Amino acid sequence: MKSGQNGDGSIIKDAVSNGVQENQINWCDPKEYPFDLTGFAWFQKEKIYRRFPKQPVAKLPDRVNELADCTSGGQIRFKTNTRKLEIKVTLSGEANMGHMSALGQCGFDVYVGEPGKQQYLSSAIPPLNEKIYESTLWHFGSKLDELLEVTINFPLYQGVEEVLVGIDPDAVIQQPKPYQTEKRAIFYGTSITQGGCASRPGMSYTNILSRRFPLEFINLGFSGSGKGEKEVALSAREIERPGCFVIDYEGNVNADQYNATLLPFIELYREWHPFVPIIVMSRIRYAKHLNDEQGKDYERRREISRSTVAELQRKGDKYISFLDGSQLLGENWHECTVDGVHPNDLGFMKMADGIEDVLRTSLEKGGVI
Amino acid sequence: MKSGQNGDGSIIKDAVSNGVQENQINWCDPKEYPFDLTGFAWFQKEKIYRRFPKQPVAKLPDRVNELADCTSGGQIRFKTNTRKLEIKVTLSGEANMGHMSALGQCGFDVYVGEPGKQQYLSSAIPPLNEKIYESTLWHFGSKLDELLEVTINFPLYQGVEEVLVGIDPDAVIQQPKPYQTEKRAIFYGTSITQGGCASRPGMSYTNILSRRFPLEFINLGFSGSGKGEKEVALSAREIERPGCFVIDYEGNVNADQYNATLLPFIELYREWHPFVPIIVMSRIRYAKHLNDEQGKDYERRREISRSTVAELQRKGDKYISFLDGSQLLGENWHECTVDGVHPNDLGFMKMADGIEDVLRTSLEKGGVI
Repeated sequence: MKSGQNGDGSIIKDAVSNGVQENQINWCDPKEYPFDLTGFAWFQKEKIYRRFPKQPVAKLPDRVNELADCTSGGQIRFKTNTRKLEIKVTLSGEANMGHMSALGQCGFDVYVGEPGKQQYLSSAIPPLNEKIYESTLWHFGSKLDELLEVTINFPLYQGVEEVLVGIDPDAVIQQPKPYQTEKRAIFYGTSITQGGCASRPGMSYTNILSRRFPLEFINLGFSGSGKGEKEVALSAREIERPGCFVIDYEGNVNADQYNATLLPFIELYREWHPFVPIIVMSRIRYAKHLNDEQGKDYERRREISRSTVAELQRKGDKYISFLDGSQLLGENWHECTVDGVHPNDLGFMKMADGIEDVLRTSLEKGGVI
Repeated sequence: MKSGQNGDGSIIKDAVSNGVQENQINWCDPKEYPFDLTGFAWFQKEKIYRRFPKQPVAKLPDRVNELADCTSGGQIRFKTNTRKLEIKVTLSGEANMGHMSALGQCGFDVYVGEPGKQQYLSSAIPPLNEKIYESTLWHFGSKLDELLEVTINFPLYQGVEEVLVGIDPDAVIQQPKPYQTEKRAIFYGTSITQGGCASRPGMSYTNILSRRFPLEFINLGFSGSGKGEKEVALSAREIERPGCFVIDYEGNVNADQYNATLLPFIELYREWHPFVPIIVMSRIRYAKHLNDEQGKDYERRREISRSTVAELQRKGDKYISFLDGSQLLGENWHECTVDGVHPNDLGFMKMADGIEDVLRTSLEKGGVI
């Protein structure tokens, strides 16, 4: 797609010469300048919407390798004055879960406003049983007085082969306002980390938090398969410019597995990043009554998180902290999930509210913000 | 299904003689004693899961007639000591919306605890593209010391042709604890009233409120089709033992239509129920920026609610009140919907929180609680 670049960094797409005009819509590829594409740490090298490298330093577990194609945490950022904003999407597959909306799994949603001040505006709702869809994100009745800062969130539970952003032929696209820092907040963990079961992409807890901090967020939640493997640590530590690393995989393992993996996982990361803030989170509460064995295992895992962090602190690590996930959902904790395990939007908002201060303290201590 | 009734009102199902035993599960029909089936005002006459009569006093609008088969607000209540609780469902159709989970549309969820103290426990998640499914709601590891009070919520956006509740062959089913009053809270309105887009049935605002008040709730939300028609008022006023009537259909009509229908709708209801508390709710905020025309229409509708209630109060109606819906979602209002229109679980919880006091005041004023 050809475009003419202006002196101020904006482009005005040429609706006639680029050959992709349809119904007065100019389709733009967010992989190109001046869009800012965040959440995919290997994007600059590989130019695909993927959360781990195609050729990792160590072979990833098969399911992690597959789930890395889910686009959770990906964002398209830009400024525009278009009266009409459309989106055209080609997914890798269709929505396939009964406890999460197709919108949360395969849809996009859009926020407007500067980093830290974004407001939700609308959603691109995928049809059921379709891999390709098109949606109008907004169609304002009157001309915009100024350019809007736009953030579009990628789907949480599906791969995206292509996405195009459609604007008025005479509209402008410009680079978004830059973040305050080039460092990134990285979250590693479970299906909950990945965003199951948010009603729309912007409501996963990492995406909610991304609206409260002026830096890029990277989501490494791998549904059912974030298990603290060393191969995963070897790839995760390759992510450049880390501002903090949140470890939230406890829900995917039992206490013995957690005990065997947590310290080695942290140590591998620390080899490369001795001063990057690390937060070890324990799991949120289960709504379903646990029998004694499950309940004990849950308590043991939380104690492993707590004691591992305490031990590392005792040995001199000043940049590691423990976050007690069992308290995050608050008084009405049982209402906060879809299925007893995965948060609904109420639960995700409470998680974000409860994590925000700990994350801010860590980022400040690490000199990131 | 044959069952032997005990002196204390309980039954112990005979797993051998009833001929429906499968894998040590005794399937019970909640239409039968001692289950309490609520939310379907014509159930005692018609024995079907439906929100309006099959033969109404005046012909219902076609779409209202269809949507009356959606089971929003229906609940199955009972006491049991079963270690395993299962559910077997035959729906009228499959999940068909991209912005609401199949669970919210077609699933059931279960709460345990006495009226006013229920806690969410688990969900029956329907598979996609299936009309028939079976699900385990709980399977406790050890024997229960006492009978649990159980409430199972029906699907919000689909019809239910049959539902069976499966228990251990030696388990007991008893009548639930009765409500404090025989009167009912009735809500009439839109897709939002019906529960779009709660992640699971228990999270629609009327179902949340049903857990905070000791009486039956009846949901008359008709997605897109609750428009204040007189034929609908004629059927709604037939519902016996009303404890309050909440009118929440403003989002389905424009200001002119609202102005033409609201007063006649209220007057028809008042003919039969002069002292039943009525609450007229205005619509929650839209997330999508409204152009001037839409914004003005939204403001006009709110003003019609307010002034209609004020005029009726001036004329001596002591049991009618206005609830300003535009304030219900609070400070973070824009985060509270799935698509700019329909609440997510965060939005529904805020709606319930904001309505609770007004509803309590109305019910107290009407002498209901």
